[in-house]
Amino acid sequence: MRGIFITLEGGDGAGKTTQASLLEEWFQSQGRDVVRTREPGGTPLGVEIREMVLHSRGHIDERAEALLYAADRAQHIETLVRPALADGKVVIQDRYFDSSVAYQGVARDLGADRVRGLSLWATRDLLPDLTILLDLSVEDGRARLEALGKRFDRLEAEAAAFHERVRQAFLDLAAAEPERFLVLDATQSPQALAAAIRERLESSGILTTEA
Amino acid sequence: MRGIFITLEGGDGAGKTTQASLLEEWFQSQGRDVVRTREPGGTPLGVEIREMVLHSRGHIDERAEALLYAADRAQHIETLVRPALADGKVVIQDRYFDSSVAYQGVARDLGADRVRGLSLWATRDLLPDLTILLDLSVEDGRARLEALGKRFDRLEAEAAAFHERVRQAFLDLAAAEPERFLVLDATQSPQALAAAIRERLESSGILTTEA
Repeated sequence: MRGIFITLEGGDGAGKTTQASLLEEWFQSQGRDVVRTREPGGTPLGVEIREMVLHSRGHIDERAEALLYAADRAQHIETLVRPALADGKVVIQDRYFDSSVAYQGVARDLGADRVRGLSLWATRDLLPDLTILLDLSVEDGRARLEALGKRFDRLEAEAAAFHERVRQAFLDLAAAEPERFLVLDATQSPQALAAAIRERLESSGILTTEA
Repeated sequence: MRGIFITLEGGDGAGKTTQASLLEEWFQSQGRDVVRTREPGGTPLGVEIREMVLHSRGHIDERAEALLYAADRAQHIETLVRPALADGKVVIQDRYFDSSVAYQGVARDLGADRVRGLSLWATRDLLPDLTILLDLSVEDGRARLEALGKRFDRLEAEAAAFHERVRQAFLDLAAAEPERFLVLDATQSPQALAAAIRERLESSGILTTEA
């Protein structure tokens, strides 16, 4: 069995966790071993990095932030994701380098190409087999988080204009790589979204390719 | 007054701390404000990063390590060094990007140009006015550290061949930028080394340039 690498992208509140769970159940029902993971924070080192970035009391320079995310990513891909894929497992990952390109590269003006290049160097060019973008308006995303009573961390508390830029950046990334991306309207029901994801997986060559 | 940025490079045990102290005293005797700092670890964020890199119990991917050093550097230069230089202070710094190029770029084979490019991006191209390389053989450096009863951290415990590559990398960097570097034989007495450093500062334009 060839390993399968699937990433979920989109703003907070778009439903990435729900879809990851449904997708995990489905793969397990097909007899596949699944690894659920996330960035930042999928390794012990990454947990420390995530803590520093999201909950630092002082100001973090924006380039330092981008480099910390890249460091987390290097450790995560090398020590967790690549070994799982080599074992033929399905890796379902919450956020990958498209998030860095959208948040740091575009919305924070560090340069999409520079941030993407940093991530590809960090990961020795590991691209997902499929990236699911759950697209949701900024207002809908914020409303969902507030309904859940979630406290905003530093990134989530950024202004709405910042999140608009992030949303557009994700859509532009998906338009540039239609073969890798599946863009879904996240206002659909969880079951409808899960069905659309399974349909894409079954109609593509991802499931049938052998090692 | 124009700020002055001086970095000290060389293996552990070469005497960087002693020379930084003597240089600080000399600048203070000239009426200059001095900031002593170091990488990794010159900021609160950097202290956390240094702790992760030097004392991690698990394996750290080599690209993750290089990215963590670059993140520390971005934060350090942006929040501490540039403001001090803008105030006309003298910044004396223990290790800068030449160490990353020598340790990660050359000795760990990540590529000197890649690691240098990462640092220059992180620091928005801040080059020192003077870089003092205290050159010492690997055996002499190890003997000094052992005489001090110092415990070796993870980097210091690397094999001697690794430290030989680091030493040669520093010498190559200095040869490529003779105007920025002052290379000194670190077996000389601390007083002789300090005199050679002051002589270079006085014979160059570094001290007399106004803002």
